[in-house]
Amino acid sequence: MRRNLVVLGSTGSIGRQTLDVARSFKDRIAVFGLATHRNVDILAAQAAEFCPAAVALGPDVDAGAALGSVRVLQGDSAMTELVTHPEVALVVVGTAGSAGLLPTLAALRAGKLVALANKETLVMAGSVIRQVLNDGSGGELVPIDSEHSAIWQCLQGEPGQSIEQLTLTASGGALRALSARELEEVTPEQALQHPTWSMGTKITIDSANLMNKGLEAIEARWLFDLAFDRIQVLLHPQSIVHSLVTFSDSSTKAQMGLPDMRLPIQYALSHPTRWSNDLPRLDLASVGQLSFAPVDLDRYPALGLAVRAGQAGGTYPAVLSAADEVAVQAFLEKRIKFTEIPSTLQAVLDAHSPCRTPALDDILEADRWARSIACRLVST
Amino acid sequence: MRRNLVVLGSTGSIGRQTLDVARSFKDRIAVFGLATHRNVDILAAQAAEFCPAAVALGPDVDAGAALGSVRVLQGDSAMTELVTHPEVALVVVGTAGSAGLLPTLAALRAGKLVALANKETLVMAGSVIRQVLNDGSGGELVPIDSEHSAIWQCLQGEPGQSIEQLTLTASGGALRALSARELEEVTPEQALQHPTWSMGTKITIDSANLMNKGLEAIEARWLFDLAFDRIQVLLHPQSIVHSLVTFSDSSTKAQMGLPDMRLPIQYALSHPTRWSNDLPRLDLASVGQLSFAPVDLDRYPALGLAVRAGQAGGTYPAVLSAADEVAVQAFLEKRIKFTEIPSTLQAVLDAHSPCRTPALDDILEADRWARSIACRLVST
Repeated sequence: MRRNLVVLGSTGSIGRQTLDVARSFKDRIAVFGLATHRNVDILAAQAAEFCPAAVALGPDVDAGAALGSVRVLQGDSAMTELVTHPEVALVVVGTAGSAGLLPTLAALRAGKLVALANKETLVMAGSVIRQVLNDGSGGELVPIDSEHSAIWQCLQGEPGQSIEQLTLTASGGALRALSARELEEVTPEQALQHPTWSMGTKITIDSANLMNKGLEAIEARWLFDLAFDRIQVLLHPQSIVHSLVTFSDSSTKAQMGLPDMRLPIQYALSHPTRWSNDLPRLDLASVGQLSFAPVDLDRYPALGLAVRAGQAGGTYPAVLSAADEVAVQAFLEKRIKFTEIPSTLQAVLDAHSPCRTPALDDILEADRWARSIACRLVST
Repeated sequence: MRRNLVVLGSTGSIGRQTLDVARSFKDRIAVFGLATHRNVDILAAQAAEFCPAAVALGPDVDAGAALGSVRVLQGDSAMTELVTHPEVALVVVGTAGSAGLLPTLAALRAGKLVALANKETLVMAGSVIRQVLNDGSGGELVPIDSEHSAIWQCLQGEPGQSIEQLTLTASGGALRALSARELEEVTPEQALQHPTWSMGTKITIDSANLMNKGLEAIEARWLFDLAFDRIQVLLHPQSIVHSLVTFSDSSTKAQMGLPDMRLPIQYALSHPTRWSNDLPRLDLASVGQLSFAPVDLDRYPALGLAVRAGQAGGTYPAVLSAADEVAVQAFLEKRIKFTEIPSTLQAVLDAHSPCRTPALDDILEADRWARSIACRLVST
């Protein structure tokens, strides 16, 4: 039986790879809906291939005739309308930034399986989403990030209370070989050269200063419903061991593979079974060496900020995430230096009056507040 | 509720570590029975500590007064009588060599959970044991070998048909740095210095020429009910990654840990849950590097023989295993050279007229035949 899939952010890196998986498993997945903010041309090509029942576009985009007869939803609630349609079973959230939050919540409340590639959603509103999941509304949230997928795969068949520690691996990013002085002068072009993964621009910059790993730690805390101090980060330049779980009896399990997002995307759709595919296989004998090292927080101050925001909880992670979107954009536009990303975040976090147990409105308000403060900081 | 445990080979390396685990989890495990071939003094101390309902001894051993009032079973069927007792739930088979076969079969037929550290049992009679398991008699067979435990742990929660390949890791043994000429002159003392694991003498010699890994591959074939060509061997000198499973969607899972048999022993008794313990934790940041290399079969001819015996099936693995017990003993007694172990095995295998689908009697007969031929070869 084919299950109906909606892909939010279908024209981005995760969205396109999700459609690669859907193309390989047409007997199992039907593309019911696609959403993009403004990439009408790519969306039109995807719609022509997959014949979705509907597509969603950003409110201020004029699609013209590009989409032909496909039903087009637009407006603030277009993505929510798409994902909550009764015929939809699976939702892949591949949008960047905070745009994934409201559709994710709506899909979960409607009992859908949501595969989440967007880490801002859980970073901002993990407590709210965890509450929806624990209420047993029928929805299920599964990860697409390779690290979280690795942990999730390692947890299959294991009782939840036996988790002692999660270890997120980090490649160290594009700039891992540079000195502190060289980091001052890094250009966006340099920071966008990720050594092992090909990803979107925001996440690649976040990987270069390990902010991404900090956001992932906060995400893991909510996804696996664990205390934040059970999550650690380990440098692993080869990106072969995607992450690890240590259990209460001292056993450690790791999930490994070549860096290819199609595997975690596919597993999110296939679990608890696995679908045979032709993705390249890992050959450890030819890899030869895997190396691991502790993370130096002096070298990666952005990670240190994320860890402190994760420990503090409340609205701090939402503020961190929102301010980071602004700061990374300013760096990409060469308005601030690479090393000014963490100092901007630090200033925003310092100025924040947190809400300790925020409701969704508190989170959205903290997000708006952080963006406006960060915008002001990067303009001066 | 405490479950009653019988430990066969309680005075050996696996047996003593099993009792370490039992000592740590007295609220979960009661030691119901112990068996040893002839180590009466150690057995008496164990009996004094754990107060078993009965113990079993080899037929020709005089226990004198050492065991006090403990009930002593002796004779050919003593171990079988012990493991099939209605009050027994768990049986750890830690005996060396072929002695574990009949009690393992009896325990499985009586519906017990059998935790097997003795690889000869499955190498000799895997087809017979697999038939008992597949008949659904109620018994369950689980591994204690660290490699097989690793694979078993990686398979938790995974559908069986999704296994693509099992990868057994091998340290390369005590002699991995020696040249072919140096291997000619290796003494038992040198071969007994295993680089990462502390084990019994037979298995340590088998590790030095990788025969052990060949026997493990045959064992894995029956334990996990897979075609033999789905099992490969990978050199991994650090013995941290205990083994790996690759699934049909390209995902690979590994189980890792410091080399300590108490973990796989405990997991065999605790599964599918895990019991918190104080065993040392793996710290990959301080390990630093893990390395992997293909196996050179020219350097390890014993492994090559085992692979061919595993592929040929029938009574060949039983013949290999029996002849290897004789050849290793002859090497330990300095009657043959280290490099004459594989040449002895080759000669015995060459002389064998195999039974393709053996019953238990055919296997026992092949075992006897191989021992007598091997004894003759090592004496000349």
